[in-house]
Amino acid sequence: MKNRQIWLRSRPQTIPGAEHFAVRDAEIPELGEGQFLVRNAYLSVDPAMRGWLLDEGNYLPRVEPGETMRAFAVGEIIASRNPEFVAGDRVTGLFGWQEYTVADAEQVLLRASERDLPLSSALGVLGLNGVTAYFGLLDICAPRAAETVVISTAAGAVGSCAGQIAKALGCRTIAITGGEEKRRKCVDEFGFDLAFDYKAEPDLRAALSAACPEGVHCYFDNTAGAISDAVLANLANGARVAVCGTAALSTWNPWPLGPRVERHLLTKRASMKGFIALDYKARFPEAISAIANWVRAGDIRYAEDILDGLDAAPGSIKHLYDGANKGKLIIRLAAAEDLVRDPQQGG
Amino acid sequence: MKNRQIWLRSRPQTIPGAEHFAVRDAEIPELGEGQFLVRNAYLSVDPAMRGWLLDEGNYLPRVEPGETMRAFAVGEIIASRNPEFVAGDRVTGLFGWQEYTVADAEQVLLRASERDLPLSSALGVLGLNGVTAYFGLLDICAPRAAETVVISTAAGAVGSCAGQIAKALGCRTIAITGGEEKRRKCVDEFGFDLAFDYKAEPDLRAALSAACPEGVHCYFDNTAGAISDAVLANLANGARVAVCGTAALSTWNPWPLGPRVERHLLTKRASMKGFIALDYKARFPEAISAIANWVRAGDIRYAEDILDGLDAAPGSIKHLYDGANKGKLIIRLAAAEDLVRDPQQGG
Repeated sequence: MKNRQIWLRSRPQTIPGAEHFAVRDAEIPELGEGQFLVRNAYLSVDPAMRGWLLDEGNYLPRVEPGETMRAFAVGEIIASRNPEFVAGDRVTGLFGWQEYTVADAEQVLLRASERDLPLSSALGVLGLNGVTAYFGLLDICAPRAAETVVISTAAGAVGSCAGQIAKALGCRTIAITGGEEKRRKCVDEFGFDLAFDYKAEPDLRAALSAACPEGVHCYFDNTAGAISDAVLANLANGARVAVCGTAALSTWNPWPLGPRVERHLLTKRASMKGFIALDYKARFPEAISAIANWVRAGDIRYAEDILDGLDAAPGSIKHLYDGANKGKLIIRLAAAEDLVRDPQQGG
Repeated sequence: MKNRQIWLRSRPQTIPGAEHFAVRDAEIPELGEGQFLVRNAYLSVDPAMRGWLLDEGNYLPRVEPGETMRAFAVGEIIASRNPEFVAGDRVTGLFGWQEYTVADAEQVLLRASERDLPLSSALGVLGLNGVTAYFGLLDICAPRAAETVVISTAAGAVGSCAGQIAKALGCRTIAITGGEEKRRKCVDEFGFDLAFDYKAEPDLRAALSAACPEGVHCYFDNTAGAISDAVLANLANGARVAVCGTAALSTWNPWPLGPRVERHLLTKRASMKGFIALDYKARFPEAISAIANWVRAGDIRYAEDILDGLDAAPGSIKHLYDGANKGKLIIRLAAAEDLVRDPQQGG
């Protein structure tokens, strides 16, 4: 049995493209004690990949040329030498852009145990995107009912989930997204009270100021850049900013400049705090269970943009930055088809 | 009885100088119900004054031309129509750059009740400087013993107090200050473990990196600017930054640029939070009592730079920015002399 893998051929200087990767067939090693073999069904494409490839001093080491591309994936265990992880279990983890992964318990991020919901959601709303939205919003922003919550990349997998949780908590939710189609989606599908297309706003800062006469109490920041500058100029007293991502910036080398934040923080007694969802791993089951219930109740909707086959992976990262993807970007492998035919799999 | 006052003649565009102020004699109004008359002994000169004069959208309205200059002062009540504030009480408040102030309870910031310590300290270590250090360090930075705490303008009234509190809590304390004299003072008088003269360091970022192999756990930021940029590049995981002042920046119009902070906050799961000590007013007595005990025990030393007479006030703000003052800058009025002759007054 061969294992097709996408490996890093050369290090990109900016947004990674198909030319930086190649495909290879690899042997699957024997399972060691405690290991198990995952047959991957869906592979994830995430903004964090850019950082894994480009930036040193990140929270994970860089992926080196020659290595299989690091990626989250969800699949089914088909062989095991670990009594805690048995054949038929479905698990999510950093399994890489490949068909099969020899993994151990440490590599598992989550068990995909909400079997009435589609397995692909384990890479999105019931996966790292969902828990990122959950902890960033509840732990860092900590909004109170009736407060104004602004979310950037609001049509994205994390932003749309965070906005809907905030709405479920009784907040006024304001979306910032790029393009009229996404703007409408934020209002019509994700229930934001108001949505701005930053590309169409001549003065986003003024538009936010008019829309938020009492200021912005919470800002869930997925972009940094000019969008954040406009939001930070409109903070309410005591505002909380959760720094989750920097999608608006294509590189940190050279380090980008922006308006200094100190005076906003000082005069508004405001806070900015960065967080990484993986730090909350011990609390993931709590978050997934809550999100699954919101999904079942119709309070949280989610969108997926599914590409077919491993060969779609190398060119997929670019899609995150050209604004064309319409939901959580996922690569579907052959294993997914087989699992859909499994009567236990819903959706 | 006439009341000499310093009033704002014209709005400065940058650091305020003597030319922006003038002196006048004013009548003292009759006391209304609940009011009392304070004879001011010491007037304060604070970095915040620049903002009160220049910047709109601050936490207090701007001082308008024609108004008496806003300032903290401490003095003795000499007449009262308020049973809570009686003749002989010593109080600190926003009493302005003037000899006498008709005040009410709302204007009082603190009672200067630690009578064994010098009254001038009520404008510094036992006043707003001390409580600023106390709450910024304990509430925002919240250092644990053995953590590394970096403080900018560390020889100043706030910085030196914050550093000594951190040291008393068992932290490793690192001072950043300007000039060799202040650098020595930080180590010799204020007990910092290490002190940097940022003017003499060719690469402060690298120097901090070498001095803090585990990173900076807490940063008490009084400057913003290039000093902060160097510290923020050296944060430890989970670092807390208390944004207290922006002394390194002479104006926010035009708004200054700097290296964006988001990636530091994100990769280090760090937080920056602005605070204004006046928000902690209800807890001031707790802080003053704790600081007074540290002062008596010799754990907190403080430095004062006292100018004599109301006429010294207009030119005093500039001293805060030319780096020449050697401690908390205070204007001493005639009333202080009379109080020193009072046997109840120590120091």
